[in-house]
Amino acid sequence: MSSTRPLLDYFFAPKSIALFGITAHPHGLGQQILRSLIEGGYQGEIYPIHSQLRHSLGLPCFASLDEVPTDVDLAVFATPPQGILPQLDSCAKRRVKAMIIISGGFKEKTMEGGRLQDQIVAEANSRGIRILGPNCQGVYDPKTKAQTLFQSYERLLRPGPGKIGVITQSTALGCTILEWMAEEGLGVSRFIGYGNRADLDEADFLQYLKNDIETKLIGIHTESFRNGRRFLEVAQLVSDRKPIIILKSGRNEKAANNVATHTGSLAGSHKVQTALFRQAGLIEADTIEEFMDTLKIYSFYEGAAGKGLGIATNGAGFSVIVTDLAERYGLEVPNYQQSTRENLRQILPPHAIIGDAIDLMGSATSEDYRLAMELMLRDERVNVLLVCLVLQNTFLDASIVDVVSGMLRTRKPIVVCATGGPFSKRRIAALQMNGIPVFPTPERATRAIGHLVARGERTGKRLDQLPGLHE
Amino acid sequence: MSSTRPLLDYFFAPKSIALFGITAHPHGLGQQILRSLIEGGYQGEIYPIHSQLRHSLGLPCFASLDEVPTDVDLAVFATPPQGILPQLDSCAKRRVKAMIIISGGFKEKTMEGGRLQDQIVAEANSRGIRILGPNCQGVYDPKTKAQTLFQSYERLLRPGPGKIGVITQSTALGCTILEWMAEEGLGVSRFIGYGNRADLDEADFLQYLKNDIETKLIGIHTESFRNGRRFLEVAQLVSDRKPIIILKSGRNEKAANNVATHTGSLAGSHKVQTALFRQAGLIEADTIEEFMDTLKIYSFYEGAAGKGLGIATNGAGFSVIVTDLAERYGLEVPNYQQSTRENLRQILPPHAIIGDAIDLMGSATSEDYRLAMELMLRDERVNVLLVCLVLQNTFLDASIVDVVSGMLRTRKPIVVCATGGPFSKRRIAALQMNGIPVFPTPERATRAIGHLVARGERTGKRLDQLPGLHE
Repeated sequence: MSSTRPLLDYFFAPKSIALFGITAHPHGLGQQILRSLIEGGYQGEIYPIHSQLRHSLGLPCFASLDEVPTDVDLAVFATPPQGILPQLDSCAKRRVKAMIIISGGFKEKTMEGGRLQDQIVAEANSRGIRILGPNCQGVYDPKTKAQTLFQSYERLLRPGPGKIGVITQSTALGCTILEWMAEEGLGVSRFIGYGNRADLDEADFLQYLKNDIETKLIGIHTESFRNGRRFLEVAQLVSDRKPIIILKSGRNEKAANNVATHTGSLAGSHKVQTALFRQAGLIEADTIEEFMDTLKIYSFYEGAAGKGLGIATNGAGFSVIVTDLAERYGLEVPNYQQSTRENLRQILPPHAIIGDAIDLMGSATSEDYRLAMELMLRDERVNVLLVCLVLQNTFLDASIVDVVSGMLRTRKPIVVCATGGPFSKRRIAALQMNGIPVFPTPERATRAIGHLVARGERTGKRLDQLPGLHE
Repeated sequence: MSSTRPLLDYFFAPKSIALFGITAHPHGLGQQILRSLIEGGYQGEIYPIHSQLRHSLGLPCFASLDEVPTDVDLAVFATPPQGILPQLDSCAKRRVKAMIIISGGFKEKTMEGGRLQDQIVAEANSRGIRILGPNCQGVYDPKTKAQTLFQSYERLLRPGPGKIGVITQSTALGCTILEWMAEEGLGVSRFIGYGNRADLDEADFLQYLKNDIETKLIGIHTESFRNGRRFLEVAQLVSDRKPIIILKSGRNEKAANNVATHTGSLAGSHKVQTALFRQAGLIEADTIEEFMDTLKIYSFYEGAAGKGLGIATNGAGFSVIVTDLAERYGLEVPNYQQSTRENLRQILPPHAIIGDAIDLMGSATSEDYRLAMELMLRDERVNVLLVCLVLQNTFLDASIVDVVSGMLRTRKPIVVCATGGPFSKRRIAALQMNGIPVFPTPERATRAIGHLVARGERTGKRLDQLPGLHE
């Protein structure tokens, strides 16, 4: 598979892109991709191909690929299915290495479309060209701005550069994940929306991200596997080095049906898959939200040293819920050490309650949190600290942000649960900027922590052995 | 219980409020409540009580309740626990009917605090005064602006007037729910944060909301019940008339422990409670998010006529997930009638896929949605229509908002699933303004619809028999 790596680089850092499927219509698919390349500031050469148009969005068009003055790394097709085969010879002549077919109308549509898809792959491969798609969103690279996203910058936020590699079969989920990351301030390393995966498949992408130094963790959403066995083999190798979060949809017969029409591949039994994922070290999410929350916590921390979940709060309503759910998510609210309890009792205001959670009460100040967190993080039974913050309470001033994030020096994962409107959202954004992941409900915080702890337990690694924490 | 109704009116529409616990400190609890009353524009008389201060926040203070010139409907205490008993005679003299004790330090704290709490209740009751609290957030009425919320308007958004009655034991959840409602544009009828419920309890509040004409549905979060049997009896009566969504935290032994310290009452076995809730017609949510989502869908629709869930989409990724989950949430993706399928085939673009979901593909326009929705809503096997929208796609213009909301005339519940950043959020807000509930993931949309259908099935009512749809 070592040839995959240089190959996939042509998708993310092409020196030049030829774009087929330009139309006069401003909303055409080709036009949209061209607009994204321009708006994004892609710095390579862009060659829009059109037999008649002289210009498109201010760029000169080329009547055919043969007239393009340089070699082309990446050919992007937004044409009707029939428009692709006739171009393959020209592509070969221009030394095209990588091809993305955005258009639909292939295997997901009709038998005939399926045959055409197979033929294109065979003919392209025989010319040394590998294909992403068809019927897909394609790629987005946050550094080179190489992309085939056919949603404008106005309509679709793009995340900046970062450590999360995203692989999804679905454009709907692609849009969802990209905008969520952008709004959360999480960075993407590479984004791949792969649709029908007629040629390159989920195992190839995973293999590529394994060796990609930008990518520190991987999120993969798929509705089916082209070759489940190979995928799991690759996943097993990758998951030892980088966390892989997986969301597998297309689970039941009804859905399998749906998937068959959507991407032309069948889904297997979900229960069996879940067991296999586990075996391969994959972290499975049940919902889009859980998928994103888990990516989020892993983009802040690599793991936790154990399941002891300390809880500090200024609102017992939150900590009660965390305590309810700890067991469900494989966590344990610890019996704090006797010395911790005694020190807390001595140092905290008398109204604070030293129970399963350390309840600093509604009147808690940033200083109360500082005192409590110091002691709790020193307790060896606390492996992760969940800090619940009712930020709306007047007594909690802006210094809470520095107090909480300052504790990161202890190298134990610290997670915040906080809800609220514009005021709280500003504090939440500041916390996340400072390296603290914030979740909007106690349930979601607890679940995300559960996933973080599970990986530590599975890999047998202790946090202090995990490199690159908070990098 | 008929005496409860007029009594609780004194909490929500008092002509005058006496406020104990004013301090010179601007961040004091009493100061915060006073600020909320002023900022909110409460129109009744406000009497801040303080032995020395002449003014507080621009209002004249009274040295004692005896010096207040009129009768007082509501006395609010933000004083230390010891400060309450000495005031009860003056309260009686001023014909105080209702008392809210915001302060903590009672049963949740110590045995002694528990005894003091009991004594206050006994003494107050003997003078004809009923108590909300102590250790609680108190009330918020969106019309009179009577409130004891001790979070400023800057820090805590308040929802406007509306149909949802909210009862919560927790201030943390109170803040969460209030701000979420405000941001979603959902209105509140009455808000009650009840804490230790030393006197009035969850059954009393439920009973009050049953007869309250502003309240059309009820959300209740509790960590325990003072009298579970009475609560269920009342709930049974109310749930026939108004949907009640319940979130019960404090579920396991560990949590029960926590709850015992928090509000001074023990929790029971959660499994048993779940069965009893069901029997009483309550709709139980497992998480805060599910609680809020369920309140949301019921604030748009009263129920559904059956479990047939039609799905229209321009992104198969979403519909695959919905199809996965339909059964889990008691829904059925229908076999559309033969005539529906034929008409759809005839009228929709050839690339549309008429499967379990009607997939209009990424190129779908508002007109495609209009055509599909018309036919789907006419199909008697469709009881609820879930419209998945990848709003980021260029082909979907602003008219989608009117197209979708225009279909409400069919009187079948229509729910939208849409995700996204600022661009999509504007469309989502417009859809909700027009009467369409929008959920941010297919999983949450499906779960909420499941809850909507379940009630219809339980009450045996068909949608067309339910009054007040979309009022």
